[in-house]
Amino acid sequence: MTMTAAAQANAVRFGVKTARETIEAAIETVGIRDPAYCSVTRLLAERARRMADAIDIRIARGEQVGPLAGVPFGVKDLFDVAGEVTTAGSVVLASDPPKEDDAIVVQRLIAAGAIPLALLNMDEFAYGFATENAHYGVTRNPRDTDRLAGGSSGGSAAAVAGGLVPITIGSDTNGSIRVPASLCGVWGLRPTQGRLPLGGVYPFAASLDVVGPFAGDVDDLKLAFEAMDGHALDEVPDTRGLRVARLGGWFEQDLVPALREGLERLTGFFGTSRVVELPEPARARAASFVITAAEGGSLHLPRLRTRPIDYDPATRDRLMAGAMLPAAPVIRAHRVRNWFREQVHALFEHVDVLIAPATVGPAPRIDQPTIMVGGKPVSARANLGLFTQPLSLAGMPILAAPLAPPAHEGASAEERLPLGVQLIAAPGKEASLFAMATALSQAGLLGFPTPAPAPVHMSSSNSGNS
Amino acid sequence: MTMTAAAQANAVRFGVKTARETIEAAIETVGIRDPAYCSVTRLLAERARRMADAIDIRIARGEQVGPLAGVPFGVKDLFDVAGEVTTAGSVVLASDPPKEDDAIVVQRLIAAGAIPLALLNMDEFAYGFATENAHYGVTRNPRDTDRLAGGSSGGSAAAVAGGLVPITIGSDTNGSIRVPASLCGVWGLRPTQGRLPLGGVYPFAASLDVVGPFAGDVDDLKLAFEAMDGHALDEVPDTRGLRVARLGGWFEQDLVPALREGLERLTGFFGTSRVVELPEPARARAASFVITAAEGGSLHLPRLRTRPIDYDPATRDRLMAGAMLPAAPVIRAHRVRNWFREQVHALFEHVDVLIAPATVGPAPRIDQPTIMVGGKPVSARANLGLFTQPLSLAGMPILAAPLAPPAHEGASAEERLPLGVQLIAAPGKEASLFAMATALSQAGLLGFPTPAPAPVHMSSSNSGNS
Repeated sequence: MTMTAAAQANAVRFGVKTARETIEAAIETVGIRDPAYCSVTRLLAERARRMADAIDIRIARGEQVGPLAGVPFGVKDLFDVAGEVTTAGSVVLASDPPKEDDAIVVQRLIAAGAIPLALLNMDEFAYGFATENAHYGVTRNPRDTDRLAGGSSGGSAAAVAGGLVPITIGSDTNGSIRVPASLCGVWGLRPTQGRLPLGGVYPFAASLDVVGPFAGDVDDLKLAFEAMDGHALDEVPDTRGLRVARLGGWFEQDLVPALREGLERLTGFFGTSRVVELPEPARARAASFVITAAEGGSLHLPRLRTRPIDYDPATRDRLMAGAMLPAAPVIRAHRVRNWFREQVHALFEHVDVLIAPATVGPAPRIDQPTIMVGGKPVSARANLGLFTQPLSLAGMPILAAPLAPPAHEGASAEERLPLGVQLIAAPGKEASLFAMATALSQAGLLGFPTPAPAPVHMSSSNSGNS
Repeated sequence: MTMTAAAQANAVRFGVKTARETIEAAIETVGIRDPAYCSVTRLLAERARRMADAIDIRIARGEQVGPLAGVPFGVKDLFDVAGEVTTAGSVVLASDPPKEDDAIVVQRLIAAGAIPLALLNMDEFAYGFATENAHYGVTRNPRDTDRLAGGSSGGSAAAVAGGLVPITIGSDTNGSIRVPASLCGVWGLRPTQGRLPLGGVYPFAASLDVVGPFAGDVDDLKLAFEAMDGHALDEVPDTRGLRVARLGGWFEQDLVPALREGLERLTGFFGTSRVVELPEPARARAASFVITAAEGGSLHLPRLRTRPIDYDPATRDRLMAGAMLPAAPVIRAHRVRNWFREQVHALFEHVDVLIAPATVGPAPRIDQPTIMVGGKPVSARANLGLFTQPLSLAGMPILAAPLAPPAHEGASAEERLPLGVQLIAAPGKEASLFAMATALSQAGLLGFPTPAPAPVHMSSSNSGNS
């Protein structure tokens, strides 16, 4: 098993290992492993080394360092990082000047002691669920490199699943954190819309954009979220008091059997077989599609006119179609959204956490990038958000977690691929999600092991005091 | 001078006059005067008589009645009134079933003792500043019946100016309360966006729609607003502490001299010559235009497809153009709106009340429905909102008040027409507006007398105790 962010930070804080050693080990791991994954687009080695040395000096002086001291993290390439160009996975922006400041959530992670080490691959302008990028390559799933990592934050999920860094950050407009987290067997959080600041984040569809963390286990996910939020979460003392239900109807379609069984084990743990249905999820998903297309199209219209050839063809066609949408259906989509939000928020008067699948099944193969919906193969790039996209419309916090892999010996390789679920709460109730996820992780029902990192070379003297 | 709502309610509460007598007198006044104004589209005589009798019974029993007991009020025909069809000034809706319930603000006025007596004329679907309605006629300005009353709540302004009822209610998307209040020489309030409930109000452009009261003086306006709001306003003890400034730049263009002088008298009263400018008001106005057209067009699109012939031609053409707008500029207009709001709200850290003109000058003639903007005649129907429309975009409360008429003998008839100003405060600060308006009214700088109503026929016995 890989070393968690919490363990890495403790090793640094208590002098077992220097921050510099931690960073050097991570740089080496990226160099060894990432060629197989294509999750890293730029390594920020020099800045990371400087930041690590500064932390080591502070520790040597006996100064307080943060809860993520010396922990390397990865950044989807739509967050500003000082001194770097923010490409948002495009070449259109690649000739922009470097950014002067880090995005606000990057600043907050740095304030907690973490060190940005790598910029990560994504679908161009975050418009896709596949991380098949015409300019920077296809990110491969570390659980099976013949398969998609999912997207659009595919580099962020793969970098954690591949054991490169314990924490990464990404963005989720229609499922871009939850889909790749699920397909790669890592943890991801789409926080309450509006909770985390978007300063220094390249936008996609402002009505739906949210940023959040990825991690290899629920404790690291919580540490990362608390750092990004700037506050410790409230404690939820007892998960036995949580009212839990499974989402039925729309969220039961086309599930692979292992996912169906896994969902039942989760609700069974809480002693409930309660099923609730959301009102008109197909309409909610359509509204998300329309709002995303229109806002994305509007944002890119001036550049689509002047530099169409520089866009990834798959992104360009969707953005152009969006730019040509008339206003009337977009306004109606916002009316659907307001209605849907009211309905969903009312539902949370009677339940604390809802459980739903994140995708219909495991990661699709790269050579056959489709999923089966309604008995027909449809584009994975456009449709992996089947279960994430309707939920985006309502603004709630959603934690994506991997089901624990099957214990039985006879499981095939495909059956051993990760499957993800969504835990959903009312706006602002991230604490309930973490309490529930922790209980389910401790019970062995959620969580997927990530590989150990490459061995650490103890190149500098160790003045540890443990 | 007409009898105020406060005086009418006191006469009823203290038994000087019954509610029934008050209502009968108002019905007679409407019958005598309104043929010259065309402000009333339906008289609700039978229900008003029943409600008046019920109030008189409660008074006879010694029960408490509200602060507006027995006061007749008029209702723009886009608020639901129980038992009546809500036409919104159209024939398209005229065959709809009658409404079962009163709109929420109508219910609240009734709870304060007021009695809905009349439905009032408007531009069809509130899309215009003229109250020239192809189906229900042109509402004429009671100050000069050869002139426009303004719109879209022209019936609401004219009914007060003509002395039919002391209080009316209307709606203001781009200026539809403030423009007719100004042209008719009455008081009107566009409250903070979101403060008053819109339940039972036929929508126009949901991003900008606000409802509010009209009255003949500032005290009645406050009584009406407090009833609609369901709460008494906070007291503002001393207007001398208010930081006041005049809006310059955009809000100084094309003003008639009397309006320019009147604005200077108002700021002079507060001992200030401070002038502030809003950022990019022309862009803000354009954004209001675009959002209104798109949302109105989206709302009406299904009916424009099936019943175009039933629309007022002037409204239909604007709605059709709006329905064909692409989404991209509408989304950009919302971006302008968000930016503009932030700028304007920041301005209120340094000032409490801003003063601006409501229109460029007095009411245009009906046979020449244009105003001069930039030295050129432009359509009054579309352009009377020159000074009101940019402000709608920012959501602040705005009180429209008439300048006091000129005292000097030599003033011409045109110089004696009403001129209106806008008093603008930060969101939620209606109390500051009323405090300032009251001070200026008491100083004789604001306020325009309304004609006396027809004599009251004392047809029933009077058991008064005064």
